[in-house]
Amino acid sequence: MELDTSDLGGHIHRQYDEDLEAIRTRVLAMGGLVEQQIDNALKALRDEDVELGERVVGDDCKINELEVGIDEECTRIIALRQPAAGDLRMVVAIIKTITDLERIGDEAEKIGRMAARLAGTCYSRRQMNGVQHLGSRVSKMVHDALDAFARLDVNSALRVVREDEGVDAEYETIMRTLSTYMMEDPRQIAQAMDIIWCVRALERIGDHAKNICEYLIYFVKGKDVRHISVEDMEREANALA
Amino acid sequence: MELDTSDLGGHIHRQYDEDLEAIRTRVLAMGGLVEQQIDNALKALRDEDVELGERVVGDDCKINELEVGIDEECTRIIALRQPAAGDLRMVVAIIKTITDLERIGDEAEKIGRMAARLAGTCYSRRQMNGVQHLGSRVSKMVHDALDAFARLDVNSALRVVREDEGVDAEYETIMRTLSTYMMEDPRQIAQAMDIIWCVRALERIGDHAKNICEYLIYFVKGKDVRHISVEDMEREANALA
Repeated sequence: MELDTSDLGGHIHRQYDEDLEAIRTRVLAMGGLVEQQIDNALKALRDEDVELGERVVGDDCKINELEVGIDEECTRIIALRQPAAGDLRMVVAIIKTITDLERIGDEAEKIGRMAARLAGTCYSRRQMNGVQHLGSRVSKMVHDALDAFARLDVNSALRVVREDEGVDAEYETIMRTLSTYMMEDPRQIAQAMDIIWCVRALERIGDHAKNICEYLIYFVKGKDVRHISVEDMEREANALA
Repeated sequence: MELDTSDLGGHIHRQYDEDLEAIRTRVLAMGGLVEQQIDNALKALRDEDVELGERVVGDDCKINELEVGIDEECTRIIALRQPAAGDLRMVVAIIKTITDLERIGDEAEKIGRMAARLAGTCYSRRQMNGVQHLGSRVSKMVHDALDAFARLDVNSALRVVREDEGVDAEYETIMRTLSTYMMEDPRQIAQAMDIIWCVRALERIGDHAKNICEYLIYFVKGKDVRHISVEDMEREANALA
């Protein structure tokens, strides 16, 4: 990314353009809804709450509508206002961020569907503890990613990126445990597969939260940090500080 | 999308701007590499070719590099050329398309990794036939999506969107078969899980191909068609024709 970033610092501290600020507010509102969906999905899974699980599935369309609306608004702003380097990077980062938020919503929807299906079946409650632990960890990643986005905080964003490594390790451990569990009790395979889809969905939510943080670093620093190691990312972020 | 689209038809038939055309060419080159990765991953799986599977894993970074490069070029063009409605929609569609292409590459990488791991193990060859059938179907979806992108062909794009419904149905069938297979022979669970990840990766590749076609329809028709049924999509596309 070789765009001029010299005006970025000053711009952030000046009165933000109302249109851009309104979009940022809408992204955060969309993020709040996505967080709510994750939490409801995990609650439905824990409490075996069929109704809540189905509500999560039904509410996914609200997130989709927000995505389409914000996307249109972003394109409109680029067309009408022709934003310069810093603002343009923000708009591009937002276009990418809402794609990931929408897909987090899709994963929450899957968990809600599995929760409704698993409720009342005789799956192992012990397996579920690991899922809930991973769930709260991933839910916090999404929260922190949105918080970093709200405060344009590169260091918080870097922490979320690093946290994804821990989440991936925990995911692998749960998967191994579930495979062993299936081997020991093949009658539970159908339920275990549903739990596996939940764990997989959580792991993907973590990936999307990481993506959002990478877009944020790109917006603030004007440097694309995707596809590089966390160490290199931290070095880049500090070099550009 | 309420942007003015009146100049779009004429614009497409006029001499395309060189910068925009160069980006389109790079997207198609990236798409070609992604197709190659899918085909190699499926071949590695079929021939139990560890070396080819590992090569697919190693080559994923080439796709990542292309994504970052095209992304930067798109932002540069918006900043310098401030494209109007039709061209701007194309650039936004490209920014979204390459995100999906990159993620197709990630899924191909996963299949390559599984192929290397499964080679030489005593998993059921019979299970693999279904995977290969789904694989060639999904591979064709990606090919057709890129072809529709190259020719700006909305009708081909709609066919890919419709094809995704068939792919999802086939995915569900294979998943049920694999669950039964695990129940019948729990000693094969570890291998069956690896096959399940391959099937899952293929299903996601189909989703990404569908996404690319939806962006294309948005670009050509100026109408966002995500999150609506295929029937409504076809109606919208025809109404705007």
